[in-house]
Amino acid sequence: MVQSLDTGTAPRSWNKRGQDKARRLAAVAPWLSGKVLPSSRIVEALEVLVHSGDRVALEGNNQKQADFLSRSLAEVDARKIHDLHLLISSISRREHLTLFEKGIARKVDFAFAGPQSLRVAQLLEDRKLEIGAIYTYVELYARMFVDLTPNIALVCAEKADAQGNLYTGPNTEDTPTIVEATAFRQGIVIAQVNELTDELPRVDIPGSWIDLVVVADRPFAIEPLFTRDPRIINELQILMGMMVIRGIYERHGVTSLNHGIGFDTAAIELLLPTYGASLGLKGKICRNWTLNPHPTLIPAIESGWVESVHCFGSEVGMEDYIRARPDVFFTGHDGSLRSNRVLCQLAGQYGVDLFIGSTLQMDPDGNSSTVTMGRLAGFGGAPNMGHDPKGRRHSTPAWLSLITADSEVVRGRKLVVQLAETYQKGGEPVIVESLDAVQVGKNANMPVAPVMIYGDDVSHVVTEEGIAYLFKADGIEERRAAIAAVAGATPVGLKANPRKTEDLRQRGIVAYPEDMGVRRGDAKRSLLAARSIEELSAWSGGLYQPPARFRTW
Amino acid sequence: MVQSLDTGTAPRSWNKRGQDKARRLAAVAPWLSGKVLPSSRIVEALEVLVHSGDRVALEGNNQKQADFLSRSLAEVDARKIHDLHLLISSISRREHLTLFEKGIARKVDFAFAGPQSLRVAQLLEDRKLEIGAIYTYVELYARMFVDLTPNIALVCAEKADAQGNLYTGPNTEDTPTIVEATAFRQGIVIAQVNELTDELPRVDIPGSWIDLVVVADRPFAIEPLFTRDPRIINELQILMGMMVIRGIYERHGVTSLNHGIGFDTAAIELLLPTYGASLGLKGKICRNWTLNPHPTLIPAIESGWVESVHCFGSEVGMEDYIRARPDVFFTGHDGSLRSNRVLCQLAGQYGVDLFIGSTLQMDPDGNSSTVTMGRLAGFGGAPNMGHDPKGRRHSTPAWLSLITADSEVVRGRKLVVQLAETYQKGGEPVIVESLDAVQVGKNANMPVAPVMIYGDDVSHVVTEEGIAYLFKADGIEERRAAIAAVAGATPVGLKANPRKTEDLRQRGIVAYPEDMGVRRGDAKRSLLAARSIEELSAWSGGLYQPPARFRTW
Repeated sequence: MVQSLDTGTAPRSWNKRGQDKARRLAAVAPWLSGKVLPSSRIVEALEVLVHSGDRVALEGNNQKQADFLSRSLAEVDARKIHDLHLLISSISRREHLTLFEKGIARKVDFAFAGPQSLRVAQLLEDRKLEIGAIYTYVELYARMFVDLTPNIALVCAEKADAQGNLYTGPNTEDTPTIVEATAFRQGIVIAQVNELTDELPRVDIPGSWIDLVVVADRPFAIEPLFTRDPRIINELQILMGMMVIRGIYERHGVTSLNHGIGFDTAAIELLLPTYGASLGLKGKICRNWTLNPHPTLIPAIESGWVESVHCFGSEVGMEDYIRARPDVFFTGHDGSLRSNRVLCQLAGQYGVDLFIGSTLQMDPDGNSSTVTMGRLAGFGGAPNMGHDPKGRRHSTPAWLSLITADSEVVRGRKLVVQLAETYQKGGEPVIVESLDAVQVGKNANMPVAPVMIYGDDVSHVVTEEGIAYLFKADGIEERRAAIAAVAGATPVGLKANPRKTEDLRQRGIVAYPEDMGVRRGDAKRSLLAARSIEELSAWSGGLYQPPARFRTW
Repeated sequence: MVQSLDTGTAPRSWNKRGQDKARRLAAVAPWLSGKVLPSSRIVEALEVLVHSGDRVALEGNNQKQADFLSRSLAEVDARKIHDLHLLISSISRREHLTLFEKGIARKVDFAFAGPQSLRVAQLLEDRKLEIGAIYTYVELYARMFVDLTPNIALVCAEKADAQGNLYTGPNTEDTPTIVEATAFRQGIVIAQVNELTDELPRVDIPGSWIDLVVVADRPFAIEPLFTRDPRIINELQILMGMMVIRGIYERHGVTSLNHGIGFDTAAIELLLPTYGASLGLKGKICRNWTLNPHPTLIPAIESGWVESVHCFGSEVGMEDYIRARPDVFFTGHDGSLRSNRVLCQLAGQYGVDLFIGSTLQMDPDGNSSTVTMGRLAGFGGAPNMGHDPKGRRHSTPAWLSLITADSEVVRGRKLVVQLAETYQKGGEPVIVESLDAVQVGKNANMPVAPVMIYGDDVSHVVTEEGIAYLFKADGIEERRAAIAAVAGATPVGLKANPRKTEDLRQRGIVAYPEDMGVRRGDAKRSLLAARSIEELSAWSGGLYQPPARFRTW
């Protein structure tokens, strides 16, 4: 009998997870009305539902925050609940780290920690926090289906009905993915909502995936992370934007793309209806976008440049504008945006031809990182989109245009563009001999340095000096020479060999503005389609309603 | 006024897609009862709902097939509806190509065409069919959110209720993704279901995403694509399996992985409870899996090797077994499997340490393809999982173990293993001087040759001769020498230089069975934990119920 191979063990239970879940839920059943838990009971419910050592996925998203649940979790008795393993996209709020200060949580796997990056570094040094790993978003979700499946998911939505069906509104973001990983492996899903209602505008997540609903004490927190005030865009950024449009978008015929959130990419968005139109490029470039609804994209949309935008999340103030532009944005039958971080990251990885983003530091090989001394900021979505996806098999003209080998087996390449003004505002060089990330990684005992974008994945580097077409460089030495040739007055740039640089220009591996027909003197703020948030709102016909902090009129 | 930049056009409508959808749906409204269309009306409804030139996403999945809808689409009047652009994961059924023979469809973007690959090649030659591109699955879905958003989605599910909520059952597969891309950009979603019911076991897709439901004339078609009969596993495959377990899984500490669907990987699954256990590896390797519920994995599950399995789809006959093993599989509160191709492909790309698959042809550089003369089979999911994902930032011991560079900026690497018996059954060499795919690509005017896995993505090649540890090879010449050293009596293998081979063995770049303590004489069928489908069923306690074609008892 074959089963005899499996010897010496008592009959195995194959539903331990389900039985454990049932026991936990039974303990809070007396407090529930259907799936609804009274808000006042949330802390004591968490003390029963969460067990020490659990993996807890906390929606700390990129934008929206399950802050009622995170604040409540920070209030549980750490003698009862401790050593949690937190899975969180973005460490964004004070109480996320209070969990570690109190000992409620011990270990964290995360993708981004912008606002809290200093405290993360401090807690790590104080041995109050242990890092599992730092991820790009989708990697963390991927492991939720492999070896980091959550025991508990704490998520948020705008509305729920009595059956637990959720309406996320425009910020669907990561919620369906986290819920799917948890609900279908006998984890417990708790959703905070702004309100209970009889009829939802639409269903974003089916009620049968949700165990408990609790009404938050106040609407979930959300930050306008993708609003860039055009008033702050400077002329160097405009010059770089002009070079990108001429030297990259036009030259490679880039029709589908993702933009980062820097002021330099905002400049590009605002140059399309003016400088781009003057080059006759409307309809030829920048048609299909994967990005959040950047307000600075409004003039290009209104001018008819944009066929479609699929979004990771939404952006505060853009709700009515999106609702009025359903041909461009992905919206539900209720009219509001449907975003989805996993699907937009998938589209941004495999479905578009170009990623362009900014960096805080770049080394002579083109490696870059936003992790700098004393800051553990993480990577966000950049690594997933900022590399050449080797699983890609379909061709587009832009992808094919990067082929340099002459062989019977070749493949094209994604355009991965890194923007870097050679100096930061404070006078610190951006292009440096060695990334701070290398030392930070050593200090934190990381197995490899926390690099955001690797140099060998970068196809183009753009500074205010010019463009280095790294994909054409033959070998690492030539790649270094090309980067040095656009590194300006940084120590790296000062080492550039003028004769080598001239050779690279002749061979089209380096181009300065004059080589691509861009006149430095044209790089004026008057070239921006909108020069203020007020003008963006005017372009939208008043549909874009910027948050108060951006209003000056 | 900034708006004046947008000159000379009539007031633009921003809801053309929504208005078009409303017009189409209004034309069938008289036939509907709620969202339900009478089955007898389906052909005339499609003639109204679908317009010539539309992009139509047809669920032609890897496994389940919306075959009532595809058969009905093939019956529309080609004078009314023609030149459709088909987006289809898998060209699996006769009528998929009948659409092209009749001129109803003209262009296709697809990922796999196994059973119909000969006819695809013929229709292409006859200029009845135009290929947009051949994809790996997720790439095709990615473009549905960018520039290939469907106008119409024809999908299938097991059950629907009157509100259009769908229960997919264990084969959720691609349905939520295709529906999301279509529904949220004002496309029309039509779902065929096996039955209408008042109460669904669970909701897999919310009703508000679905426009029309139609009951199929018979349950949707589904193929047991992942069932491998252990009786067909030969001793060479067992030898290769032993080498993989010792020389790769044990050596690199591989805990999370994906297996292809060949008999060689089935052999590995069946060797874990016997050979693997004898090496003391239980609990140390192969704990977390991303793959379909392979029946050949049952003995390893029953022996306690497997902590979790997340699935792309399901497998016919495995339903009751999965239902009885919820600690291992992802299941809903109704007890049945929840699969999801996009999320499992994400997990298989970013969340696991190893991909291992078989190939029909490999060239001296390690490039491989299943596209051979006269067959356009496509790639399926292999390219997405069979490459080193450069966006990965988290470390695991297996991933770190492939680092060979000594630099301050390094990264680990995914294990991408290609299995190839040196000769196919018919006596054709598998390792060849040039891939057929190169000539096929030229004949079909493809911009690049249809390569499934590129050599520079492969970390290990395993043949019955031994293992080539390509990740350790220094440069392309050494990589070629390592492949030749395990290429046996093929023309490529006969050119191997014995002195170079000996050098590679000394340096651990090539290993033969004796180098890793594997005795060829032990590679017997008696080492398999199950030697027949009947024994697999016995291991499962009768819960696995193989389809009739696999039953011999």
